[in-house]
Amino acid sequence: MSIERFAFTIAATDGVARTGTIAMGRGVVRTPAFMPLGTAGTVKAMKPGDVAASGADIILGNTYHLMLRPGAERVARLGGLHHFMGWDRPILTDSGGYQVMSLADLTKVSEQGVSFKSHLDGSAHLLTPERSIEVQRLLGADIVMAFDQLVPTTSGRAEQVAAMERSMRWAKRSRDAFDAFDGAKGGEHAGKAALFGIQQGGLDQGLREASADALTEIGFDGYAVGGLAVGEGQGAMLGCLDFAAGMLPADRPRYLMGVGKPDDIIEAVRRGIDMFDCVLPTRSGRTGQAFTADGPLNLRNARFAEDREPLEPGCPCPACSRFERAYVHHLVKSGEILGAMLMTEHNLWFYQRLMEGLRDAIAEGRLQAFAGEFLGRYR
Amino acid sequence: MSIERFAFTIAATDGVARTGTIAMGRGVVRTPAFMPLGTAGTVKAMKPGDVAASGADIILGNTYHLMLRPGAERVARLGGLHHFMGWDRPILTDSGGYQVMSLADLTKVSEQGVSFKSHLDGSAHLLTPERSIEVQRLLGADIVMAFDQLVPTTSGRAEQVAAMERSMRWAKRSRDAFDAFDGAKGGEHAGKAALFGIQQGGLDQGLREASADALTEIGFDGYAVGGLAVGEGQGAMLGCLDFAAGMLPADRPRYLMGVGKPDDIIEAVRRGIDMFDCVLPTRSGRTGQAFTADGPLNLRNARFAEDREPLEPGCPCPACSRFERAYVHHLVKSGEILGAMLMTEHNLWFYQRLMEGLRDAIAEGRLQAFAGEFLGRYR
Repeated sequence: MSIERFAFTIAATDGVARTGTIAMGRGVVRTPAFMPLGTAGTVKAMKPGDVAASGADIILGNTYHLMLRPGAERVARLGGLHHFMGWDRPILTDSGGYQVMSLADLTKVSEQGVSFKSHLDGSAHLLTPERSIEVQRLLGADIVMAFDQLVPTTSGRAEQVAAMERSMRWAKRSRDAFDAFDGAKGGEHAGKAALFGIQQGGLDQGLREASADALTEIGFDGYAVGGLAVGEGQGAMLGCLDFAAGMLPADRPRYLMGVGKPDDIIEAVRRGIDMFDCVLPTRSGRTGQAFTADGPLNLRNARFAEDREPLEPGCPCPACSRFERAYVHHLVKSGEILGAMLMTEHNLWFYQRLMEGLRDAIAEGRLQAFAGEFLGRYR
Repeated sequence: MSIERFAFTIAATDGVARTGTIAMGRGVVRTPAFMPLGTAGTVKAMKPGDVAASGADIILGNTYHLMLRPGAERVARLGGLHHFMGWDRPILTDSGGYQVMSLADLTKVSEQGVSFKSHLDGSAHLLTPERSIEVQRLLGADIVMAFDQLVPTTSGRAEQVAAMERSMRWAKRSRDAFDAFDGAKGGEHAGKAALFGIQQGGLDQGLREASADALTEIGFDGYAVGGLAVGEGQGAMLGCLDFAAGMLPADRPRYLMGVGKPDDIIEAVRRGIDMFDCVLPTRSGRTGQAFTADGPLNLRNARFAEDREPLEPGCPCPACSRFERAYVHHLVKSGEILGAMLMTEHNLWFYQRLMEGLRDAIAEGRLQAFAGEFLGRYR
């Protein structure tokens, strides 16, 4: 494994928590890492340079959105997703498996894959492990995710077992498609991307173990914990992570998909997770919620109408350096785009500062103190 | 008149066109100048630093919007509009006279002023010359506009005469209120603002002359041509400017309110106008229209889906330096905020580059050649 492609290095541990780096051709990702969502080829309401300035080493792109609009082949013709959107650091793309089930119409799952109609124009599509990988490679992702089948954690056991086992067959097909792409169609991207497998199995320890074994047998550059943060509640999620995270190879990055709130992230890092993505900081930025060390604030609230403090006192972000809550309140109440821009920017800085705090705390062996202090204040 | 407050210097002329500077306490405005709209305390979809980087020396704030939300007294308590919105260069505020007639509900005009109901919440308000001036001073405007009464250029002559004559009485009341504010309530703003009068009279040369005489008699720091660009067409507008602009004192800035398209601006500069404001570059940025030297482009058009050019080839703006039309097309089609951000930024740069071109052309005595070249290409 050359450093050109993918090299995970653990610099320090604190309990099962780890801090280190993932070195890839397009840059180094400091872990634990938070990946802002670049859903449809843009981190919403942010210029790419400002995303980088917030401390983000890597962003996430959504296969489902991008395959429908503007289309993977089109993005490839336009020079790939990095060039298209002006982001030259690493990009991880999801497999589309989650969003096709949550956003598309008339989804139908078979062993081959998932057929569905676009939520945009009703056009018919088929997403298979092979097509998902192809889309992600056409986009030029640095980290490609295996295509999996999601079922709710409240599904019956038979359904859970069947979905996990199918996901493992799809993981193998994803691996094969990924390797074949490198061999046959990789072009300039050949040998430069990494592939992650996704553990499934709901909240069941035995299923999580079987899934981890199957994935490890296939072999991936990193491993994600999938199927969580879908409504099971923080207690159940952390209870599952207590056993699920440690089943994944310790020398590879572990990625908890779709997580989460600041306290979720801290608890997951304590359980050995290295990577996160979540819509919260960006979406909240567009709905008037600002993250602070004391908990989230709803800037629509009239109590901020003459509040002269920045969104978060002490925050070094550009929004907090220049503007007061009273102004952001006015922007949010008035539906001004600048409100979404400033709130999103602050929230992304907040998340990256949290990750930096976690990395420093692990490196200095004081993660429990850091977590206790943060969680004692955060409401 | 100290340079601290307001000093207009003409550096060069070309025909009746002029280029120079307006020096104010908060900065120097290069003329001919284009003022982006900072309607409700924000140049929509732009950070203030990026507005300044586009070359804007001054922006415009709307009295009508700001008096309703967040309110002039509130802005004053929060340190004034400049501090509130993070813009430290000069701001011109309009008088509210135009927008109260075009946006408010149940407007009723009397000699006292205009009573109306807010389009936001139906609350009742009265805008008089005295209140308009007070609002603008509370906001902390560097250039304050007299409160006037607008009637359509298609109104009958009796109505035109009455509106012009009332506007002149209101101009005197505006002058008195402005001076009284400096004397009694100016506080830190005392003696720092300038006051412009507004010429009315529709398309009638005699009425324009009478209005100019009345304003000059009262005495203002600058003079605006009001009541144009309201649907009369470019030919009629320029025909009016042919006689109206020269009636205003040559040693004071002349401001053509609400204008305009690039070709309108060029023709008005040729007729001796020094200042402009218009919603076009910002609003077009949010509706997918990009200004270029070849004319406006509608980025929603499918022909841009794989266009690898920047919005305008050769444009040095941040949007053109980094992104291709194909990407902006995708953003606009997807309703992404970044689309509005990039298009607005480019359009503001386009307008400021046009003004720079005009200033340089006047300084070098080649305005006719510049205008001919620009207008020959612009479609």
